[in-house]
Amino acid sequence: MEVGTLEVKEISQAVIGRLPRYLRYLGELKDEGVERISSQELSELMQVTASQIRQDFNNFGGFGQQGYGYNVEYLYQEIGKILGLDRTHNFIIVGAGNLGRALGNYMNFERRGFLFRGIFDNNPQLVGQNVRGIQVMPMEQLEDFVRDNDIDIAVLAIPKSSAVEVADRLAQNGIRAIWNFAHVDLHMPEGIQVENVHLSDSLMKLSYNINRYMTENEM
Amino acid sequence: MEVGTLEVKEISQAVIGRLPRYLRYLGELKDEGVERISSQELSELMQVTASQIRQDFNNFGGFGQQGYGYNVEYLYQEIGKILGLDRTHNFIIVGAGNLGRALGNYMNFERRGFLFRGIFDNNPQLVGQNVRGIQVMPMEQLEDFVRDNDIDIAVLAIPKSSAVEVADRLAQNGIRAIWNFAHVDLHMPEGIQVENVHLSDSLMKLSYNINRYMTENEM
Repeated sequence: MEVGTLEVKEISQAVIGRLPRYLRYLGELKDEGVERISSQELSELMQVTASQIRQDFNNFGGFGQQGYGYNVEYLYQEIGKILGLDRTHNFIIVGAGNLGRALGNYMNFERRGFLFRGIFDNNPQLVGQNVRGIQVMPMEQLEDFVRDNDIDIAVLAIPKSSAVEVADRLAQNGIRAIWNFAHVDLHMPEGIQVENVHLSDSLMKLSYNINRYMTENEM
Repeated sequence: MEVGTLEVKEISQAVIGRLPRYLRYLGELKDEGVERISSQELSELMQVTASQIRQDFNNFGGFGQQGYGYNVEYLYQEIGKILGLDRTHNFIIVGAGNLGRALGNYMNFERRGFLFRGIFDNNPQLVGQNVRGIQVMPMEQLEDFVRDNDIDIAVLAIPKSSAVEVADRLAQNGIRAIWNFAHVDLHMPEGIQVENVHLSDSLMKLSYNINRYMTENEM
């Protein structure tokens, strides 16, 4: 029988990268009370092709589109499960400067099951300060804290000069993932997931598009 | 004659999105005093294929690889010019919460020619506060300020509930680009460039990769 074949399929990071956006739109539809949606309607809403949507969803068995479109609630739940949002993840922030504090104060992460557990800095003037009810700890406590508090994710909001060293210390103490805002690409041992967020890169892309538009339209 | 044909080629956003990363690595090589580099060496350093590098560079005429590899300084300058980094861009920030202040205080943008000119908030308690020498202004002054100060880029660090309305006000007053951190996709009129930065999306991708690794290796 073909039915029910269990298969671990290699799914591209490009597909994974699009899932949160589907989730966001489905969450809004759900909030608006929409119960079903066709791939064509979702396509118009999200400004991607319906064939892209079907291809993406087929990676996960298609989510049972039947009759008129997808069940919004079911699709929302399933995509959430694929993204691991049915579990909680403890995270810490390394770096209590402006960016670190901004990330610590961002409540939306909590709604998605990402729980803010600790924040660290090597600046004595920042140690002891309060970020959403949590006191900034000195860097000396990093290793013990990660081991003792079941920390999955470390957010690096520190300069690139110290990012590689701190990432190594975290890796040696059982961190599962690094969300890296330092301006350097981190290459970690297998089993430690890394997501690099280089904000300047995104700003440069914007700069390119401004200049391209000006060159084509205003000269 | 074929030589010197001027052609405006449509370059994919994926290629453009990779240019800042090339620039970052070339800047580091330059700082280390490296003068020439082959596509093979650059490939190993950046962990992308040499053929990818050559294909990307061929979009811009190939940057004259001759004999042993590329001239690092030349390549760095040329990619910077393509990204429009030889010009300056004035930017404002809408939203003076933690994220807005973090972005205002981030000095690296200035080094790339992005000049922080103003910051706005509708919270009277934030108005008048100081962010890197600039006082937070009330939202009522937004339109006049954008028109009078040659502002190219607006950074939206506000909740999604107000992002669409604020983006429209900016569009009507001559903004060229929006760097959007609000958790909603903005679709602006032609000629206004948008770069959406959805931080939660990136965190969810990380969550997927943690769970996938755990499922495959620890069960």
